[in-house]
Amino acid sequence: MKGFAMLGIGKTGWIEKERPKCGPLDAICKPLALAPCTSDVHTVWEGAIGERNDLILGHEGVGEVVEVGALVKDFKPGDKVIIPAITPDWNSVEAQGGYSMHSGGMLAGWKFSNIKDGLFAEFFHVNDADGNMALLPPGMDLAAAAMLSDMTPTGLHGSELADLQFGDKVVVVGIGPVGLMAVAGAAIRGASEIYAVGSRPNCVKVAKEFGASHIINYKHGDIVEQVLKLTDGKGVERVIIAGGDNDTFDQAVRMLQPGGAIGNINYLGEGDWIKIPRAAWGVGMGHKTINGGLMPGGRRRMEKLASLVTAGRLDPGKLITHKFNGFDKIEEALMLMKDKPADLIKPIVLL
Amino acid sequence: MKGFAMLGIGKTGWIEKERPKCGPLDAICKPLALAPCTSDVHTVWEGAIGERNDLILGHEGVGEVVEVGALVKDFKPGDKVIIPAITPDWNSVEAQGGYSMHSGGMLAGWKFSNIKDGLFAEFFHVNDADGNMALLPPGMDLAAAAMLSDMTPTGLHGSELADLQFGDKVVVVGIGPVGLMAVAGAAIRGASEIYAVGSRPNCVKVAKEFGASHIINYKHGDIVEQVLKLTDGKGVERVIIAGGDNDTFDQAVRMLQPGGAIGNINYLGEGDWIKIPRAAWGVGMGHKTINGGLMPGGRRRMEKLASLVTAGRLDPGKLITHKFNGFDKIEEALMLMKDKPADLIKPIVLL
Amino acid sequence: MKGFAMLGIGKTGWIEKERPKCGPLDAICKPLALAPCTSDVHTVWEGAIGERNDLILGHEGVGEVVEVGALVKDFKPGDKVIIPAITPDWNSVEAQGGYSMHSGGMLAGWKFSNIKDGLFAEFFHVNDADGNMALLPPGMDLAAAAMLSDMTPTGLHGSELADLQFGDKVVVVGIGPVGLMAVAGAAIRGASEIYAVGSRPNCVKVAKEFGASHIINYKHGDIVEQVLKLTDGKGVERVIIAGGDNDTFDQAVRMLQPGGAIGNINYLGEGDWIKIPRAAWGVGMGHKTINGGLMPGGRRRMEKLASLVTAGRLDPGKLITHKFNGFDKIEEALMLMKDKPADLIKPIVLL
Amino acid sequence: MKGFAMLGIGKTGWIEKERPKCGPLDAICKPLALAPCTSDVHTVWEGAIGERNDLILGHEGVGEVVEVGALVKDFKPGDKVIIPAITPDWNSVEAQGGYSMHSGGMLAGWKFSNIKDGLFAEFFHVNDADGNMALLPPGMDLAAAAMLSDMTPTGLHGSELADLQFGDKVVVVGIGPVGLMAVAGAAIRGASEIYAVGSRPNCVKVAKEFGASHIINYKHGDIVEQVLKLTDGKGVERVIIAGGDNDTFDQAVRMLQPGGAIGNINYLGEGDWIKIPRAAWGVGMGHKTINGGLMPGGRRRMEKLASLVTAGRLDPGKLITHKFNGFDKIEEALMLMKDKPADLIKPIVLL
Repeated sequence: MKGFAMLGIGKTGWIEKERPKCGPLDAICKPLALAPCTSDVHTVWEGAIGERNDLILGHEGVGEVVEVGALVKDFKPGDKVIIPAITPDWNSVEAQGGYSMHSGGMLAGWKFSNIKDGLFAEFFHVNDADGNMALLPPGMDLAAAAMLSDMTPTGLHGSELADLQFGDKVVVVGIGPVGLMAVAGAAIRGASEIYAVGSRPNCVKVAKEFGASHIINYKHGDIVEQVLKLTDGKGVERVIIAGGDNDTFDQAVRMLQPGGAIGNINYLGEGDWIKIPRAAWGVGMGHKTINGGLMPGGRRRMEKLASLVTAGRLDPGKLITHKFNGFDKIEEALMLMKDKPADLIKPIVLL
Repeated sequence: MKGFAMLGIGKTGWIEKERPKCGPLDAICKPLALAPCTSDVHTVWEGAIGERNDLILGHEGVGEVVEVGALVKDFKPGDKVIIPAITPDWNSVEAQGGYSMHSGGMLAGWKFSNIKDGLFAEFFHVNDADGNMALLPPGMDLAAAAMLSDMTPTGLHGSELADLQFGDKVVVVGIGPVGLMAVAGAAIRGASEIYAVGSRPNCVKVAKEFGASHIINYKHGDIVEQVLKLTDGKGVERVIIAGGDNDTFDQAVRMLQPGGAIGNINYLGEGDWIKIPRAAWGVGMGHKTINGGLMPGGRRRMEKLASLVTAGRLDPGKLITHKFNGFDKIEEALMLMKDKPADLIKPIVLL
Repeated sequence: MKGFAMLGIGKTGWIEKERPKCGPLDAICKPLALAPCTSDVHTVWEGAIGERNDLILGHEGVGEVVEVGALVKDFKPGDKVIIPAITPDWNSVEAQGGYSMHSGGMLAGWKFSNIKDGLFAEFFHVNDADGNMALLPPGMDLAAAAMLSDMTPTGLHGSELADLQFGDKVVVVGIGPVGLMAVAGAAIRGASEIYAVGSRPNCVKVAKEFGASHIINYKHGDIVEQVLKLTDGKGVERVIIAGGDNDTFDQAVRMLQPGGAIGNINYLGEGDWIKIPRAAWGVGMGHKTINGGLMPGGRRRMEKLASLVTAGRLDPGKLITHKFNGFDKIEEALMLMKDKPADLIKPIVLL
Repeated sequence: MKGFAMLGIGKTGWIEKERPKCGPLDAICKPLALAPCTSDVHTVWEGAIGERNDLILGHEGVGEVVEVGALVKDFKPGDKVIIPAITPDWNSVEAQGGYSMHSGGMLAGWKFSNIKDGLFAEFFHVNDADGNMALLPPGMDLAAAAMLSDMTPTGLHGSELADLQFGDKVVVVGIGPVGLMAVAGAAIRGASEIYAVGSRPNCVKVAKEFGASHIINYKHGDIVEQVLKLTDGKGVERVIIAGGDNDTFDQAVRMLQPGGAIGNINYLGEGDWIKIPRAAWGVGMGHKTINGGLMPGGRRRMEKLASLVTAGRLDPGKLITHKFNGFDKIEEALMLMKDKPADLIKPIVLL
């Protein structure tokens, strides 16, 4: 079969591979909709997960089941399914402890385009099909559904990590696709004012549609000062970090109230140390909780998010700025993600 | 001063009383907007809290400060303030443990029109002014603000008690004003489908505006069966009880999934026993949590809810179906609450 | 193979059955230590789970692996393992939501001696071996280890359900083996005073050794009154119910403080309604949380509990009052459990 | 009156001051037992809270009430009381949100020897007496009781911040008096193995008595490696930091499992940045929660901790290595704390 792969750090291309084998608990699917992710860009061009050769990319998409293993109970060929980016080993001790994304080791619930081939192929393999796929609700837009693989669960995890409560003020740093979903998530989890930090006009527009009450542009001054000014010097109860780098934590701690929390959902690619400012962190005793975590994946999460979409609470389809048709457009879509033109939020490839 | 009071069980009338004294931590206010509550009806005509004589009624409203005690730091005469129905003793051991509404004893954070005179007077007394009043945000509609005293915090507490999470399906039993706010709260705390149980056309209309995805009418059959049908026999993760009686818990448990929770915000006025069905409750082991609690009051809660309104997340003003002008209309408004005409949700009296 | 079975309601006996088959994820074990449970008694003589024919009993024990399926990674023949009473389907949506004991339906994580043959056989089958067995720590006493299957995880779940915090006062109703483990659990989870309700001298003795500060004997008067007297009328923050019946909840609610919680770990075998007293439950608003749940099972739970034993925090071996040697003594041990002589806490059969 | 004060950074001495005035909510007490704290040393000789002149030191002790304000309900002259180091403003919005130690601003619940005179005086002032004092239980040892002011609540807060659960393995870094109480707290909150990091023989001895299962000595190699070796390379679920500096967080993150948590209770006196290692923190997504917080103070906390002592769960008196008699010995006791002789854990002055 054909697949679009990382050939090595900095290099991508189309390759031929054998169609994956289906174990007794697994499924083989063919893609119906695919989306490239910034993580694919990190993986290839930054070597974020180390060297990989001929690894098929992609971990966001919707598929159609073509084969299931003998022990699979709830799916059959022909079913249309949402595929989560994270497909845990559910019987691992980590999953039993509530951290399925770390099943088998830290971050090891992330398998597609990391420790096995991803979705950018004629066929892809899903481990533990009953545990890791969700039926596509009838009538759901494929592009919107593909956003449930990673953008939506990651974005909404920001509010969960930051333990957002009714009436809290929240800063969302970064309004790329994940940050935008974090804005949407905060709005439907009870935030009052949402300060979205970003500047690109397309993103700003969607941030407002998703519920941002204020846009904070770093070009207009220090973002901490802007937040403190908007909050009468008090700061906010929650900060969701969906962009920036290690230094963003310094800003986050300084704009946070005692008793508040940071939820990081941003991949930190460089540097040795995340910067937590000692004094602003209350000399160790300010009750400013710092959390960061990979999205929860698996079937239940997909079902829950899909129900938010079908109930009309979320419209992740708004992220899509570029639509492509045909399997061979994957490369173009990925390059778009790499080049990040000003009007891009998220591309989709329909098959 | 003049006040509208419970003269005894079953009797109300206008009385003359001395203006309340202001202790060093307290405030004296005059009302700007007042709303009668179903609790006032329970108090007078059902004797819900026992006999009371010449007790001034009312615990929902907005006021203007006319006097503050020597130790009050954050308020001064002329300030317009939201008054919570529940005004705890914040230094009590109960409040220190997180249950301020039970400061000094179960439910004893509820003082107005219960253990001291309420708001339906020319002047009323607020204990611990710094801890129990919140500034009215500039421009906020007085009628909407008055709904923050009790309807909104009680309604939203349903979701808190039921521990609602992203994508949960929730039943809200009862769509009077509190139930409607419970619907609104569920919608902005992450519910997907919201099944609102009720039938009055006015309430149904507002329930939909507040986010109900389905209306369940008991006239169309057993509500448990209707919910099970809508959920493919699985039931829901959360049930908020905002109406009904002791038997409603039987229904709630039967429509609830294992691992789910009930949040009761309804006053239960009669009968000895709340009915929890043994078998449907998993013979004691189904992990169906049963919670019920009085609203959290005080300043912080009011500030949080007000910020939800100013940020445009909630519009409690939609509850108001009947507006009156003038202090002497309190009686008429209360009688409306007692008589419950079909088109009533909530009346307000502006002064 | 030979097994000791429920022949039908009210009847037990030795039967011959085929040795169970080992699926790709499963293990077949032979028993090393077995304990009968009150649940076995309920199952046979009360028909608690309905009619069953030739169902092998038993769900507490330690075994030796004799065969594993092709997909099992962490166990091999010869391994000695602790077997949890509850062996969930870990990839189910219920387990993914944190309620593995209800995987596949309410209480359906309980499989041994319920929906498949139990441990009282020459060989028994464990579903999902990697997820549902734990290595026996070297040197651990077999009788103590067998108490980790059910008595210990159930007992400790009481504190979890009741959300016990540092310095809380707690009542444990019932000091049979589960109640005794609840006492031990409360003592190592931060309780201050532990009021253990019971009267049998053997149990009282162990309750004190496990950390009970007071013994409350119903023969000396109403237990609610005794608890209120000991707490200056205030009641306790937590009640763990490990004995009694539907009416015990009435007592529990009346001895509980607002903001407190009940954790039920007792099987409720009869009656239609659990009795929650309306007034003492704060007319629906007293924040007295009512929880009840089946023990969490699986590998991680067994490993955690085993580490408590090896670290010297718990000694569940103290429950054992009667030791038997030889497979054929299972019947005698079970009959002892049925007859409950005054000196019995828990019997064990070593093989 | 006479008091022992910080005269300026680096200087202490006896001074004369007016006896403090008693406001309507307050109490004036005379000390019965006093303990100097490492914080006093930081305050004077490291200038930890900035310059202070003639500030009476001390925030740990037991006193006798000599005067109460007109609004105080629960205390009267002659009452013996435990004084918490942290005495919040309970009606503040911060306290209403669950963070009383930050009432009025980050860390501002800490008043004694910080923003007002402390306990090392003939008389001291307690704000909000009903909310901030607890009756000394009859018969409680004064030295043990004085450890409830700060050492015990701070130490136990480590387990709370780290969210310790049954059977978790925990590292406690630092076994001075606070770290020792953290060990004791972990043992009675459900830890299995407790790895205490320290070396002084006196402290090691008490750590074992309090429940440490292993002692880790940095002189025997890198502590992270030692922990990983003891845990088969897996690390621990919880780390409580009660010693060290900004770099200790690097170690803590590296010995922590995904899904684990750090609870910091150590004052961080120097340096700009707390070091969180990017890679070991899962490139931002490892679910390794970082918490740090000042102890919860006030009456309820003192009552809870006192009940742990009277129930025999904790013996904080074991911290006391040096006893002095007489008010004038305060200076000697403080100098001992400053000089830290090898055999010191904690001194006490009885009056």
